Amino acid sequence: MLKNDLVLRAAKGLDVERTPVWLMRQAGRVLPEYRATRAKAKNFIDFVKNPELACEVTIQPVDILGVDAAIIFSDILVIPEAMGLPYQMIEAKGPWFEHTVKNKADIDKLKIAEAGDLDYAMKALSLTKKHLDNRVPLIGFAGAPWTLFAYMIEGSGSKTFSKAKQFLYTQPELAHQLLEKITQSNINYLKGQVAAGADMLQLFDSWACVLSESMYYEFSLQYISKICDALSPLVPITVFAKDAHYAIPKIAETSCNSIGLDWTIDPATARQQAGNKTLQGNADPCLLYADAEKIISEAEKMLRAFGKQRYICNLGHGLYPDLDKQKVKLFVDVVKEYKW
Amino acid sequence: MLKNDLVLRAAKGLDVERTPVWLMRQAGRVLPEYRATRAKAKNFIDFVKNPELACEVTIQPVDILGVDAAIIFSDILVIPEAMGLPYQMIEAKGPWFEHTVKNKADIDKLKIAEAGDLDYAMKALSLTKKHLDNRVPLIGFAGAPWTLFAYMIEGSGSKTFSKAKQFLYTQPELAHQLLEKITQSNINYLKGQVAAGADMLQLFDSWACVLSESMYYEFSLQYISKICDALSPLVPITVFAKDAHYAIPKIAETSCNSIGLDWTIDPATARQQAGNKTLQGNADPCLLYADAEKIISEAEKMLRAFGKQRYICNLGHGLYPDLDKQKVKLFVDVVKEYKW
Repeated sequence: MLKNDLVLRAAKGLDVERTPVWLMRQAGRVLPEYRATRAKAKNFIDFVKNPELACEVTIQPVDILGVDAAIIFSDILVIPEAMGLPYQMIEAKGPWFEHTVKNKADIDKLKIAEAGDLDYAMKALSLTKKHLDNRVPLIGFAGAPWTLFAYMIEGSGSKTFSKAKQFLYTQPELAHQLLEKITQSNINYLKGQVAAGADMLQLFDSWACVLSESMYYEFSLQYISKICDALSPLVPITVFAKDAHYAIPKIAETSCNSIGLDWTIDPATARQQAGNKTLQGNADPCLLYADAEKIISEAEKMLRAFGKQRYICNLGHGLYPDLDKQKVKLFVDVVKEYKW
Repeated sequence: MLKNDLVLRAAKGLDVERTPVWLMRQAGRVLPEYRATRAKAKNFIDFVKNPELACEVTIQPVDILGVDAAIIFSDILVIPEAMGLPYQMIEAKGPWFEHTVKNKADIDKLKIAEAGDLDYAMKALSLTKKHLDNRVPLIGFAGAPWTLFAYMIEGSGSKTFSKAKQFLYTQPELAHQLLEKITQSNINYLKGQVAAGADMLQLFDSWACVLSESMYYEFSLQYISKICDALSPLVPITVFAKDAHYAIPKIAETSCNSIGLDWTIDPATARQQAGNKTLQGNADPCLLYADAEKIISEAEKMLRAFGKQRYICNLGHGLYPDLDKQKVKLFVDVVKEYKW
C-alpha cells in the first residue's frame, strides 16, 4: 500500500486533499547529488543501463525535493536501441545514431522489442520500487511512436525534423509499418515496466510540435491511442504531446487518464477541451529563475486556474540544468502547502 | 504603378481575381541561382551588405518561380548590429554574437539605430525597386523586438532561449528598456525601408514560441503593436508570430493588415479569431517533398479552407534548402492557376 498515492488518485479523477506535484527531469542535473552519481558512470548510455545508479538518481528528488512521485531515470531512445538501432549521447549535442532508417529493408531488419530486451530497465524499476518502500508512486515512461520514429529517421535532434517529415510525405505506408513496430515494442516495454513495479506511465511526444494537425492524428495520435488502450486497464497513463495545442480534444478521446500541457496552454481552455481527463502541467521552467515572491505568486495563480481536483502540478517541460535547487524546492513546497 | 498588386490588394482586404502567392525564404538556397550569387561573397555578412548581390537574389524568385511579390534579401540581425552588437553567421550553426547584453550598462551603450546606419539595406531596396520595374510589390521586413532581444541576450540560437527568458523573469524593467530601444530602431529602419521603396512590410517573431501567453503580450506583442501603429499608415504590414497559436485574437487587435500563420493553425479557426484581418500562410514546407499529386491536392485544399479574399498564400515557415525547385514552382503554379 502506497503511503502517498495523491498522484494516482488525481490521475484517476478521485478526490485529493491537496494538489500532488512532481517535475519532469526531477532526476537530473539540477541536483548536485545527481551529478555526483552521474560521475560514477563512463558515459550516458552506461549510466542509463546501470540499475543501481538509475535507482539512486530516481529516488534522490523524493528525498531532496519532497515530490509526490518518482519517475524512473532512463531515456526514450532505449526503444530504438532495443529494436536494433544503437545510439550515442554526445555531450552538449544530444543523441546521434550511426545507422538510420531509410527504406523497407531497414524497417524489416528491426525487431519488435520485448521487455526482456530491456532487462536493465526492468531491474532498475524493481530495485527502485523496493527502495522507495511505497513512499510515493513510481512512474514509468516511453517516447511516443512519432517522436521515436523522428529520431530513427533523422538520426539526431533537429529544429525541423524535415527528413522524418519527408518520409511521412513520400513513403506514408512504410512510415506506418515502422510506427506499428515501434508501437508494439512500446506496448511490450510498458507492460514490462508495470510488471516490474511502475504504478503509472507517461508517454512523451516531444516532437509533436513539428507536425500539422492532420498529420499528427494520422502519424502520431492513433498509435498513442493504441498504447493507451493496451496499458490503461493496468495503470493510469499520461499523454504529453509538447506544443500540440490543437490536439487536446482528440487526446481526450483516447483512453489515457491525464493530459500533460506545455506552458503555452491556458488552463481554462484546456479544462473545456479535455472532458473529464486529469490535467498535468504547466509552469514555464524559466519561472524558477525568478525571485521567491514571483515563484510563489505565479505557482498559486496556476493552482487556482487548474483547480483542486483532476490536476497534477508539474512544469510544461523538463527542469533546466542550471536552475537553483532551492528554488525548485520552493516551487514544490508552495504547491504542497497551498490552502484550498 | 504596379503591374501586379495582388498581394497589396489582398493585404488591404480589397477584392482579388485570384490568390496571390509568395514564399518565405524564396530568395534562398532552394534556388541554384541563389547559390551561384552567394558564392560571389566572402561570407554571409558581406553578402547581406552588398546591395547589388542582395538585389540580384531578391529578384531571382520573381523571374524563376513567378511569385507575386519580392521580399528583400537581408537578415533580421542587422538591427542588433546597427545598435552596436555585431555578429557572425557560422556555417551549419547559425548566428553568433561575441558580446551579449547582460546588464543596464550594456543596454545604455546600445544606440537607437537610424535608417542611415543601415545604408546598405536602403541601397539594396532602392536598387531592387528600380530593377523590379513595378512588376510586383517589394516587401521589406524586420525581426520583432522580442526575437531580436532573444538573440541579443542569448548570443546565439537556442532550443529554449532560457537565458533570454531568465532576463525577462529576473530583470523585467531592464528588459522593457531594451525592448523599447529595439522597437525605436525597428521603426526608424522600417520607415527607411518604405522611403527606399518597400511597398509592404513583415515582422518576423520567430521565437514567439518559447513564451507563455501572458509573457508574450507583455514582452512581445505590445512592441509589435507600437511598430504597426507607426508603419501601417504608410504601407500594409504583416505580423508573423511563429507558433504563438494563442495570440491570433490579440494580434488581430493591432493595426497590422495581415497575420502570418504556421502550419499548426487551422484556417477556419484562424478566420474566426482574426476578425477582418487578411491571413497569410500556412503550408508545411515539407509538403513540397511530396509527389506532384499530393502537392496539388493539399495546396487546393488549403486554398478552399482559407477562401478567395483576404488571403495571401505562403508557407507556414521558410523554404528548406534541399527542396526541389521544380516542386516549389509547381506549388506556386497551382495557386496561381486555381479556378475559383
